[in-house]
Amino acid sequence: MPIAETPLQLPIPHMPAGFRAAGVHAGLKRNPTREDVALFVSTQPCTAAGVYTTNLVYAAPVAYDRARTPGEGFRAVVVNSGNANACTGSRGLQDAEAMAAAAAEQLGVQGSEVLVLSTGVIGEFLPMPVLTTGIAQAAAVLGESQQSLVTAARGMMTTDTRPKLYGRTFTAGGRAISITGVAKGAAMVGPRMATMLGVILTDAPLAAADAQRLLGEACEESFNCVSVDGHTSTNDTVLLLANGAAGGPCLGGEDLEEFGRLLMDTCRTLAREIADDGEGATHVIRIELTGAQTRDDARTIARAVADSPLVKTAISGADPNWGRIVSAAGYAGVPFDANRLVLHVNGTLLFAEGAPVACDETAVSDSIRGSRETEIRLVVGDGPGSITFYSSDLTAEYVHLNADYRT
Amino acid sequence: MPIAETPLQLPIPHMPAGFRAAGVHAGLKRNPTREDVALFVSTQPCTAAGVYTTNLVYAAPVAYDRARTPGEGFRAVVVNSGNANACTGSRGLQDAEAMAAAAAEQLGVQGSEVLVLSTGVIGEFLPMPVLTTGIAQAAAVLGESQQSLVTAARGMMTTDTRPKLYGRTFTAGGRAISITGVAKGAAMVGPRMATMLGVILTDAPLAAADAQRLLGEACEESFNCVSVDGHTSTNDTVLLLANGAAGGPCLGGEDLEEFGRLLMDTCRTLAREIADDGEGATHVIRIELTGAQTRDDARTIARAVADSPLVKTAISGADPNWGRIVSAAGYAGVPFDANRLVLHVNGTLLFAEGAPVACDETAVSDSIRGSRETEIRLVVGDGPGSITFYSSDLTAEYVHLNADYRT
Repeated sequence: MPIAETPLQLPIPHMPAGFRAAGVHAGLKRNPTREDVALFVSTQPCTAAGVYTTNLVYAAPVAYDRARTPGEGFRAVVVNSGNANACTGSRGLQDAEAMAAAAAEQLGVQGSEVLVLSTGVIGEFLPMPVLTTGIAQAAAVLGESQQSLVTAARGMMTTDTRPKLYGRTFTAGGRAISITGVAKGAAMVGPRMATMLGVILTDAPLAAADAQRLLGEACEESFNCVSVDGHTSTNDTVLLLANGAAGGPCLGGEDLEEFGRLLMDTCRTLAREIADDGEGATHVIRIELTGAQTRDDARTIARAVADSPLVKTAISGADPNWGRIVSAAGYAGVPFDANRLVLHVNGTLLFAEGAPVACDETAVSDSIRGSRETEIRLVVGDGPGSITFYSSDLTAEYVHLNADYRT
Repeated sequence: MPIAETPLQLPIPHMPAGFRAAGVHAGLKRNPTREDVALFVSTQPCTAAGVYTTNLVYAAPVAYDRARTPGEGFRAVVVNSGNANACTGSRGLQDAEAMAAAAAEQLGVQGSEVLVLSTGVIGEFLPMPVLTTGIAQAAAVLGESQQSLVTAARGMMTTDTRPKLYGRTFTAGGRAISITGVAKGAAMVGPRMATMLGVILTDAPLAAADAQRLLGEACEESFNCVSVDGHTSTNDTVLLLANGAAGGPCLGGEDLEEFGRLLMDTCRTLAREIADDGEGATHVIRIELTGAQTRDDARTIARAVADSPLVKTAISGADPNWGRIVSAAGYAGVPFDANRLVLHVNGTLLFAEGAPVACDETAVSDSIRGSRETEIRLVVGDGPGSITFYSSDLTAEYVHLNADYRT
């Protein structure tokens, strides 16, 4: 089934200094208009940090990158879509190494200086001749333009309806610093301590330990707060590449903290994009949960609400069916006093003190129907733990996409 | 949206000695052909045991029954469908008591001798005049026939497409003993330590402690091993009523164990019926998981596979997409060695030693398409923990039913 493309929702960022990118169609996807190989290349060695899936069943590129990050001296990330290189055993690991080596050969660097990402169907071996040809084609068209960046982001897509890009800039000690991130999502999105594919490029000079710490913190507050279907992927990876092209010594002190804040903003924006573009989604659901004992408790309750098929179908049907929301919170496994639950949907109070609150349900239904985003605001007590969690609604289109995915 | 009825899949059991039942349409459901009030009545006092939802947000009838079981001297269970009496605060508790009192008045017993069950929409107050009239109508048509039992079982249904009944008989010390169970499911089915509504009637004489122990064991192996959508209900309840009409002293020794085995068989059969009749389901998915360290580990992994929307849509699309199955096992949170996973679908080996096994995928797809039941057999190690877990597939019909449930 062809996936209809949708317009970009965010302004296209520019490429940070010293990076080039490209995306091409090599033939891993059937549709010749869909890019399936991407390259991100730095003119100078990068510090690299990575955050990965916690799934016990993890893909070969995850094994490959996890063994090498955080670290120094990286020059490129090579990406393919259409094939996840997951559940492919020792041959899959060899293919991941060969993929890095093929990119290194084109770029005149060492295989050990290249990281790899794959996404797509699980359990098929990479078509190495097709992929190797695609890598050479991509290396030949590397560019610094916004269009190069967009094409590379398209090379990461599976059933995404649009590429996901976002960037921020700031000045630190007279140096102009850029952070530009690209990501892909769509389905099998239920990251836990990691995320879907994301690549964050920056020209900031960063120490590897700082890069890893800030990336971990940013993922925790962004990609780990979204779910499309609760199914944690085998391939979740976010990489941060910092090439230092902005000049000067590694960021520290307040500059480093400012970098961390903008990195988090970049990751949060991309994470919300993933929920918004969830397979078949007609609504993005923003869950604002407060009053839990801890942030982990808040996340656990929010995730139970986010992943309930009954909550997700209620929103797709514009039905403010608050019973499904409070009962999902109730089975999350986190203790709270049900009589202290307070629920608002799109600003209207629906439930408090253990009983429904009279309201104009038709107006709430209209507000859900009339907006792409639905806000669920849930107070579960008076503790300090809170979270903002994004989910997408569940539609018949999601079912059709996934019942027919390989046929 | 009207729910199409489907034929019974199981033989109709007979009523155990000393019980009568009835179901009527009182008006809680709009469709006048759908029963919405049921009564189960014993001519002599019963031992009663109950197993209930673990949801922190639980309905008034759960609070009412849980405070009274296990115990002796019960005479009836009164049930309504169409309204769950959940999230209804103190008024909901008063309504549950009034519902018991209304049945007691009709039957000439005390309110404290009546247990109550409700299922349906959350968060609306029971229409007490309608319900009270319905209880009187039901009391007037109580009968011992199979038809009375079926009509009572229909009075428990929400979006179920057929009533669920099953029974077993055996002889203990010359006494003929019957066990007959009725249940309802459809959606919001993800029981944890409890189940959806179920009523098990037996003419066996049982001590209350034995009844509670055997019911708990049976639920653990039956209703706690099914999931339609992973959403644990506010109203999950299974009641066992034992009126001793078979005569003689309370069962003990081998007779009691035999009773327990048949009770478990009854619960397992009804639980499978709930998965088979999950909302919109076109397949029941039987997960045979072995090799875990413990039974709890086995259940956790099986539940992750059962609840994955990607696994459920793959089965509805007749796609043996084993990558989704093994990756769901991988995020369940239970440690295992992914290289030792072995997966068969409908008897065909698909994955072993960390890599796909060549097979005729078209034949596997045809076997899924051609059968109501799909078997997923997953070995996760060499431990003693195993489980049989039932789930249903996810179809566009489930989405339509739940997006439009209240509209």
